[in-house]
Order: sequence, then structure tokens, then C-alpha cells
Amino acid sequence: MTQINITLPDGSVRQYPQGTTSLEVAQSISEGLMRNVLSAKVNGEVWDATRPIHTDSSLQLLTWKDDAGKNTFWHSSAHLLAEALEALYPGTKFGIGPAIEQGFYYDIDTPEGVVISQDDFPKIEQKMTELAKQKNEYLRKDISKQEAIQYFEQKGDEYKLELLERLEDGSITFYEQGNFTDLCRGPHIPTTDKIKSVKLLNVAGAYWLGQTDRKQLTRIYGISFPQAKELKEFLELRAEAEKRDHRKIGKEMELFTFSEKVGKGLPLWLPKGAILRERLENFLKKAQVRAGYEQVMSPHIGSKELYITSGHYAKYGKDSFQPIRTPDEDEEYLLKPMNCPHHCEMYKAKPHSYKDLPVRFAEFGTVYRYEQSGELHGLTRVRGFTQDDAHIFCRPDQVKEEFGKVIDLVQYVFTALGFSEYTAQISLRDPENREKYIGKDEDWERAEREITEVTIEKGLNTVTELGEAAFYGPKLDFMVKDAIGRKWQLGTIQVDYNLPQRFELEYTGSDNQKHRPVMIHRAPFGSMERFVAILIESTAGKFPLWLAPEQIAVLPISEKYHEYAQKVFRELQEHDIKGFMDDRDEKIGRKIRDAEVRKVPYMLIVGEKEAEAGQVSLRKQGEGDLGSFTPEEFVQRFKDETDKVTAFSPTTPEGRV
Amino acid sequence: MTQINITLPDGSVRQYPQGTTSLEVAQSISEGLMRNVLSAKVNGEVWDATRPIHTDSSLQLLTWKDDAGKNTFWHSSAHLLAEALEALYPGTKFGIGPAIEQGFYYDIDTPEGVVISQDDFPKIEQKMTELAKQKNEYLRKDISKQEAIQYFEQKGDEYKLELLERLEDGSITFYEQGNFTDLCRGPHIPTTDKIKSVKLLNVAGAYWLGQTDRKQLTRIYGISFPQAKELKEFLELRAEAEKRDHRKIGKEMELFTFSEKVGKGLPLWLPKGAILRERLENFLKKAQVRAGYEQVMSPHIGSKELYITSGHYAKYGKDSFQPIRTPDEDEEYLLKPMNCPHHCEMYKAKPHSYKDLPVRFAEFGTVYRYEQSGELHGLTRVRGFTQDDAHIFCRPDQVKEEFGKVIDLVQYVFTALGFSEYTAQISLRDPENREKYIGKDEDWERAEREITEVTIEKGLNTVTELGEAAFYGPKLDFMVKDAIGRKWQLGTIQVDYNLPQRFELEYTGSDNQKHRPVMIHRAPFGSMERFVAILIESTAGKFPLWLAPEQIAVLPISEKYHEYAQKVFRELQEHDIKGFMDDRDEKIGRKIRDAEVRKVPYMLIVGEKEAEAGQVSLRKQGEGDLGSFTPEEFVQRFKDETDKVTAFSPTTPEGRV
Repeated sequence: MTQINITLPDGSVRQYPQGTTSLEVAQSISEGLMRNVLSAKVNGEVWDATRPIHTDSSLQLLTWKDDAGKNTFWHSSAHLLAEALEALYPGTKFGIGPAIEQGFYYDIDTPEGVVISQDDFPKIEQKMTELAKQKNEYLRKDISKQEAIQYFEQKGDEYKLELLERLEDGSITFYEQGNFTDLCRGPHIPTTDKIKSVKLLNVAGAYWLGQTDRKQLTRIYGISFPQAKELKEFLELRAEAEKRDHRKIGKEMELFTFSEKVGKGLPLWLPKGAILRERLENFLKKAQVRAGYEQVMSPHIGSKELYITSGHYAKYGKDSFQPIRTPDEDEEYLLKPMNCPHHCEMYKAKPHSYKDLPVRFAEFGTVYRYEQSGELHGLTRVRGFTQDDAHIFCRPDQVKEEFGKVIDLVQYVFTALGFSEYTAQISLRDPENREKYIGKDEDWERAEREITEVTIEKGLNTVTELGEAAFYGPKLDFMVKDAIGRKWQLGTIQVDYNLPQRFELEYTGSDNQKHRPVMIHRAPFGSMERFVAILIESTAGKFPLWLAPEQIAVLPISEKYHEYAQKVFRELQEHDIKGFMDDRDEKIGRKIRDAEVRKVPYMLIVGEKEAEAGQVSLRKQGEGDLGSFTPEEFVQRFKDETDKVTAFSPTTPEGRV
Repeated sequence: MTQINITLPDGSVRQYPQGTTSLEVAQSISEGLMRNVLSAKVNGEVWDATRPIHTDSSLQLLTWKDDAGKNTFWHSSAHLLAEALEALYPGTKFGIGPAIEQGFYYDIDTPEGVVISQDDFPKIEQKMTELAKQKNEYLRKDISKQEAIQYFEQKGDEYKLELLERLEDGSITFYEQGNFTDLCRGPHIPTTDKIKSVKLLNVAGAYWLGQTDRKQLTRIYGISFPQAKELKEFLELRAEAEKRDHRKIGKEMELFTFSEKVGKGLPLWLPKGAILRERLENFLKKAQVRAGYEQVMSPHIGSKELYITSGHYAKYGKDSFQPIRTPDEDEEYLLKPMNCPHHCEMYKAKPHSYKDLPVRFAEFGTVYRYEQSGELHGLTRVRGFTQDDAHIFCRPDQVKEEFGKVIDLVQYVFTALGFSEYTAQISLRDPENREKYIGKDEDWERAEREITEVTIEKGLNTVTELGEAAFYGPKLDFMVKDAIGRKWQLGTIQVDYNLPQRFELEYTGSDNQKHRPVMIHRAPFGSMERFVAILIESTAGKFPLWLAPEQIAVLPISEKYHEYAQKVFRELQEHDIKGFMDDRDEKIGRKIRDAEVRKVPYMLIVGEKEAEAGQVSLRKQGEGDLGSFTPEEFVQRFKDETDKVTAFSPTTPEGRV
């Protein structure tokens, strides 16, 4: 029998008979592994684990730990959902049923008179579990277009027939498990019994093929797991995430609002949200001044010419907010989608010498990018947002040092804001397709090498992805874990060889010749809007003291102590401590509870004893009574606690003439 | 002989024979007055002082002290210029020749082969002076359209003929002085000899009737005075103003720049300008927090709907930056020309009780307004600018108190920034046309009365103008005098009954009924751009210490002291003191001179003696040596000097639950 070579991810090569399946390869390694295999990447393509391999191949076995393995699992779960629906509601017609980021859905057209609601979920879930236990195999079958059409004509499913129209004969496959057959490209898991627990999550309307002029189908969302305890964890996390939804907390805490009349995706920052944002900005500004950045300000529009020069108009113009014309003159402006072209023009305001570099322009620049209204989501997907942007113009020999300094700053920001777990992705060129990238080969090689070196020197936990660099330069992206374990992309550092060339930026070198600087784009927060959303969800609105919009509540026990409470409150105000005095005619217990609900970190309670002693009874949110303090002592405690976070001191930059 | 009653501005009534001229009235009061009379306001209309009065009339004699008197004087000077040009360049054709804010111009079409340049000015000025001395009268003459046409046909002046086409027979007048006759509505001064000194200022091209498809004429600008010393003062002020031109200083000090590629009238704030602006904003923010304002943030666009609701679209839409469309959805947005509609929507984010009011939303909101590119001027006339805006939503019974508090704040700002001389204009309704105004009669009466009262209580120096109120409410505008005596309009407070109605704003009164709040718009600086321009021109770039972009310069005497200088510099940086260390290989004298040119308030010189003693030799811009200080002593001096300006403490607002 002919043998084939199977190369495993660790580089080892094993020989197997031609026609061996991935599952058999897994079994040859261990029975346990075989039980966990969901699908396999064969020569870079995801296959059924049960599909025979006929040629020498690279093989990666996929389990629940792999995103592609999860994807296969959920896709197979969608088929299981379809099987259950067909069993429970004969005559149901099926649209599409893919895996999504978290789970799967199936779009269906229910038989006349049948309406599926959340109330039907237990019944469907039960049926799915019952079918799963049957341990049915997912069977792949090549089928001719004619036979496929015949099958669905007989079944009377016009949706599948419409999908079939677009497929080419010879490339069509069916998958069958138990009593259900679907038009499907696969791959799937070996057997249904791997699906141990199932939960349907939601039901919604969805237009067939996303076209608003087509029929509205019923979309049923679900999720499934290979172990019951994973479902439990998922549901707990989901409930926790719902409680932390930044849209909900943002409204309750009066941080921001939206107005249909102002426009979709355009947040309005209410006083308490504006304070929070301003504190974050000031915090970063302060660190940036110490790190040698210079703050600049630029307008929110730019002439179309500017974006033709930058190349953005050609690339994004059609899909952006459309040009603004002037009434009298033949001019066109665009809402600024990024700050870099403006900063390039500022760099050009005067000639530069190699001794002046790096020039570091920072701006909290509000930019506008069109998103479809259906894609908008709270503060995480908006049409106008403020980047904590900066552009470093430096010599090629300064890239490594500057990159390292930006990493320091990003790490400082994450730590100060309580994000202690993060990883970074280094995105480099595709070595096979160097012609796709702008810039000199030697510059790329140097920058890629140096970025890799500096991430090691800084002790970052990184992954390197080839081919993920932007066409204009390599980059580093940070991924942080929030308080409930969710991952968010935050913070980016990008090298850019393109804009300096397009804007013809120059500096005079020590050789008295003109040279082109390198640009580094960077934003530790990314967008202030998105960052605040993440901060809300991570802290559940219980912001660290220095950021809390309401830092203190002064709570007089009764009206008799209002005057003293007022005096204490004013003294704190003098020290820029924000909050309120609760002078309602309510019991102190109620006032404390209400302040807790408002997520106020410190409560200062004043009654007879306190007024006489010139003190306050201090209570901390979630911790309870801390004893008596004079207002001055409290101010000191407050300052000690808040000052800690601004202890950033990189090498102070030298003053230059 | 019939007598007529002449009512003078002081209310006194005098009787004169019918046909008496204003000049004769002046003579009857004093010979001196008569000599000074240039023209006269008869029943509100400006007339020649030599024109006979036939009916009972109110009369205001106009002299050089009156704007209208100056206007007559300069208009007559334009005719004198024309006479001189005709004498020197026979065959010159004349367009229009009006008085302007400062002086006058005449647009002329010179004879074939004649080009007038600045070199010709002395000759023309001399001719004008010569003609002025002839003491020719300005003679007014009613003329039929036919005769007028005949005159200019004979003269061959097609420009006057074109102007004549538009005039109606029966309303046409000629004015004649010496050998020059002009088609002119007047009025003019009595005789040419009042023009004692003349200076031509500029020559430029100007399209006939401002139409770019018509012939380009030669525009000659000039100014004239009744006394030679006034011309001298004018020229000195002009030279001083040129030295202080904010565009020139802004470039020299690297405060801001413009880029054709970014767009006309869109300032780019360079690091030093951005620091200055940020300090001004922080200064006002701090005062505003103490005055009970809450900072908010809103986007730079709003849906067209928003401006249809506010009424701005109907009024200004056609002349504004045109709507921004989205690529996929049927939406239209506008660049925000003001912040009030956004703030109204924020007010509506939650219900309000009478106890919550006033709500005071403040925002440094950048707005965009289209201006013709020819009208743009540095930072004073731009297309994008940041208002130090705030909107107070209050009950009608709070208008007076709120208005008073805003006056306090404006006065504090002016004083802190060194503008000690200012006046305020109260703009009220036209009592004859009450129907032109929106809002209840009783609200207007109350607000007008209260504004007037409060300006008196605050000891403001005011003028009251009837009919100058906005249609939506009465207002108060401040006019400040700068260091060289020029006046600038700065700071405005406006009551608004319109927007609360259009946005259907409400609060629940103590009667548990819905009521409409009153809005007050206010901006002490007006626009940050314009204010910075005024500040530059008033200080000639020598900003007060707290605002100076470069506050200190550390100047080591030689390289030996660089290390110590660097240590001092870093210590100051720790205290947020901005500036630079001059480590160039230059003599100390040169370093001091250069720092003076850069307008650095404090120079810290370090040499052997200072390094040994741990001190610096302190020098103040314009004052010279101040002796030795330790860095700590200097920091203290610096803080004492800068803290003074932020000593604003209005009644601290009470905290509300």
C-alpha cells in the first residue's frame, strides 16, 4: 500500500497509508486526542476529520481549543438545530445556518401557522439533545447539481434551490446526519454525540439573503458546548456581560446619550461622562508631555486634495461621508477620517534638521467615519470618535527607540487603568509577496527586526503574524483581557513609510542632504469612546477613584447637620473632589444605599458626633465603615490614592532650542 | 418769515427762520462749533450742513468726533482725490469712491498707458493738498436723468453712465467742487479746506462692481484728517499695528499655521499655539466649574433635521457649507455652525424639575461657518473656530441672577487677561415693532428691565441700543480696548426665547405643571481663534507669564555648565514650567538677545558661580537682572506670579443630588 507523509505542526513527519483520515492520525497519537478532534487543517484548508487524505500533507488537528475547531462544532450544531426543527415542525424550509463568533444560527421559513418564540426553546433544545445522543455521523457526499435540484424540488425548499442556482456542477456536496440532509460545503464534526449541551439564545427576523425586499425569515440563535460546565460558564459570563453593558450603565450613570435628531452613532457626552473623558485625556496628556510629545490641534475637515494626496480618498472615498461643497466657490471638503494628513502638513510648517527629530505631535482628534446604521453599537461602533492619536516623525535609526518608548507608554496606560493581562500581535510582511508593500526593503527588514527585538526586550507576551502588516509598514496591536475575561483589541503602534513619501516630508541629515523621515502612528486607547465603553464594561461602572464622575457623597444624618455638611462639601470642592451632598429628607440608610447604587467610591457621613468633632465618618463603596477622619485627613487619603496612577516618569526629554 | 422748530439732542428746542442750514444753527451756538461741523443728522438722515431745512426738525450736528461725521469727511476726500487724479491724468474714468471704516478709496480706469503706483502717491497727495487749500465748496445740484446722461456721455465715462441706468429720474444729484463734478448722493462737508492732511495708503486691482467677469479697475486707498497731528498719530498706530499683526507674530512664534492643502481659513495650531490655547481653555474651565457650569462634549456634525428644528437651516442653509450625504442611506448631515441645538438635545436627555435649574452646559465647541475665501483673515476671520460656548437653561425668574453671574465671569476674564477698559452695549427691542420678536411680551419687558438693572448694579459702562436685539431675545455685547487703543468686540450674553420653544424644552414647575425654560447663550472670549489674535496684537506676543508658550530659558554660560543647566531645567519641568535650555555654542550675550527676541519672560543664567551655589541668575524680559535665586525660590516666584490670575471665586454652587 502506498504511504504518504503527514507533517505535523511541530515539524515532525509521519508516514501513513494513503487514504488515512485525520481522525486515524489522531488515534495513532492517542485515544484521548482522537476523542477531542473536531476537524483538521489539511494543507491550510479545514476538512472533516473523517475525510481520507491521499497525498503528502501538512496536518493540524483541530479541537475545541482552536477557533476553527469551535467553528466546525457550531456549524454542525446548526445542522442539528435544523434536524430538530424539521422533526418538530415538518414542512419547515431552510435558508442558511452558519457558525458565528459565539455560537450559530439558522434562518428558517416556518410552515403556515407556526410561529416560533422563546417559549418553544426548551422543546427544541430537548429534541436537539435527544438527536445528539444518537451519535449520528455527519456524512459528506459529492452530488451532481441535477440530483441536488431534484432533492430540494421534491422537498419543496425554494431557498436551497435558489442557493443551488449559483453553484457550479462538480463542486456541490451534501451533508447528512440522522434524518437531515443539507446542501453544505462542510466541514463537520465526526458525530453528533460530541455536542453535549445546547442552548438557544434568541429569535429574530432576518431578510432572506439580507435583502430588505425579500421575505423575512425566522433566525434562531444558539450556542453549544462539548461539556455541560462550559455552557454554565458561558451563561454566567453572558448574564454578567449584560449587567455590565456600557449602554445600560452609561444611561443609568448619565454618562452619555444619543439623539436621533443629532444623528445616529454620534454620542453626546453628558457632564458626568465628559468629566470621565477629560480625566482620561488629561492623564494621557500629562504622561505624553513627560514622554516628549507636543500637543497640536487641527480642524475636523480637510480639502479633498488633502486626502487625494494621502491616498485615502481613492481607497475609502466612495464608502465615506460624502464631500462638503461650499456655496460659492468650487471647493470640496471631507470630514476628517484620521489626523495623520493634518499632522503631515504641520510637520511641513517649517524645515527640519536631523537634530530636531523625533518630532512627536499628539492630538485628541475627533474623526468621522461612515458606518451603516445597522452596524452601530453604543460607544463601541460609532460614526464619530476621538482618537488619542499621535504621530512620531523620526529618522530610520530612531525607529527602535521610539517604538520602545511607545510600548512603555502603552504599558503604563494599561497598568494605571487596571488592565494587567494583555498580549501583543506583531504584524509583519508576507515574505512571499514583498512587492505588495511600500518602502525600501532594507527599511522593512530593519524595522521588523527591531520591533521584534524591542518587544522581547520589553518582555511582552507576543504572537507574530506574517502577512498581517499594513501595506505601508509593520505594526504592533495590543489585546487586553477585561475583569470578566473578555478580550478587547486596544492600542496600536504602526510604522509608516507611505505618508512621508506621499507628503514629501523631509529633514536635512548630518550629511546636509535631504532625507525622508519615518512616521509612527500610535494610540494607546485607540478611541476614547470605545475605551470608555470597555472601561465601563470591565469595571461595571465602579471606576477607580480618580476617574469616578462622582467621587464622594456627603450624607448628613438629618437637616440639623446640613450646614456642617455643606462646609465639608465645599472644602472638598476646593480640592477638585467631585460629588454631591444628599440633603434630601431621607433616612441615612436610604442615603447610603442610594450612593452605593450610584457607585460613589466614598461616603462621608455627618451627624452630631462628627459635626462636634469637626470630622466625618468615612465609608467606602463595597468595604463599609473606615472610621473617623477630619476633612483634611480625607483629602490627604484621597490624594494619596489618586496620585499613585500618575507616577509615570520616562526619561524626561531634553529641552531643545 | 416763517419760523421752524429745531430740536437739539439735549431736548432743547430753538426757533430759526425756514430755510436755515445746519451750519447756521451751529454758528448761532458758537463760531468754534461752526468751524467743526462736517455734516448734520436731520430727522435721522445725514445731510450736507449747508442744506436748508424747511420744516420742524430734530438736528444733530456732526463733527470729527462722530462716526457719521468722519464718514462725510472721507467721502468728500474721495471726491478730492478724484479731482486731483483728473487734473494729473486727464481722461481718467471714475467708478465709485466711497468712505470706508478707516479712510476712503476711489476705483478708477486710467487713460491708455497710465499705470498708477505707490511712487505716484506724493504727487497726487500734493495736488490734493493744493486743491484743498482752494477752499472750494461742495455744491449739491438736483439734475434730471437726461442731463446727467448727457454730461457723462460728453465726458466719455461709461462707468457713471452704467450707474445712472439704475437710478430713477427725479432722485439724481451731482456734487461739484472746484473743477470736478460727480454723480453722487452726498452728503459732503462744506468746503475742501477742512481736509488738512492726506495720505494715500495703497493701490490694488478691483473688478468693476465686484464682478470677476468685468474690467479690473485701479483702486486707490487713502485717508485724510482735519489736523496734521491726527495723520501722524494714525500712521504711528498703523506702523505699531503692523508690527503686532497676529499673522506675522503667529508665524514668528510658531503658534499656528495654514495649509492650502488642508483648506482656506482652517488654522492648524502648532505646539506653542496649542499650549497657549489650552491654558486659556483650562483657565476658563476652572472658573466655570466654580461658577456651577458643567462641561459637555458634542459632535461636529448634526443631521439636517436638527437645524430644520432650530430654524438655522431655513435662515442660513443656502450660504453655509453644504450637506454631507452618507454613501448608502438617505441621510444628510451638516457641519455644526453652533452648539446650541446639540445642547438642547442634551437638556432633553432627562426630565427636569424647577429645583434642578439652572442647568449650565459649557463646551469648547468647534464650529464651521462658510466665509468667502476673499474675506478670510488670519485668525480673526476663519471658517472653523472654537467657541467658549455655554448655554444656561433657567426659569424666567432666574434670568437676572444668571445674567449677573455671567457678567461677573466676563469681567473676571477680561481683568485676568489685562483688558481693563471695556464698555457694553445693551441691545433691546425696537419698541415700535414688537411683532418682529419671538417670546411673550411680559418676558421681554422683564428681561430687558432686569438686564438694564443688573448692568447698573455691576457698575458697567453701557450704551443702550433700541432695535438691536436679536429676534429671539435681548443681549449684551462687550467691547474691549487693547494696549494700543483699538477696540474689539469680545464677549456676548444673549437671552433666547426661541430655541426652548422650537426644541419644546420643559421643566416641571412647583405647581407640577410643564413650563418652558429660558436659554442664555454666552461666550466671554467669543472664539478662541479670534481671542488669541486679539491677545497677540494687544501684547505684541509678550504674553503674561502664565500664558507664554515659552516661559523660561535656561542659559548656560558655556558647555562646562550644561549638566547643571540640564538639572535646573528638569526641575522646572517637574513643576510644569515650559521653555528650553539653550545649549548652543554661543556667547551668553547672544543667548540673552535671542531669548528676548523669542519673548521669553524669564531667563535663568548659569555659570560657575551659580553652579557652585546651586543658584541661577535671574533676568526678566524688558527688566534685566533680578539677582540670584535657587531653583526652588524661582519656582515659588513663578507660582506666586501665575496663581494670581486664577483667584476667581464666585459663590460656590451647592451640590445637588
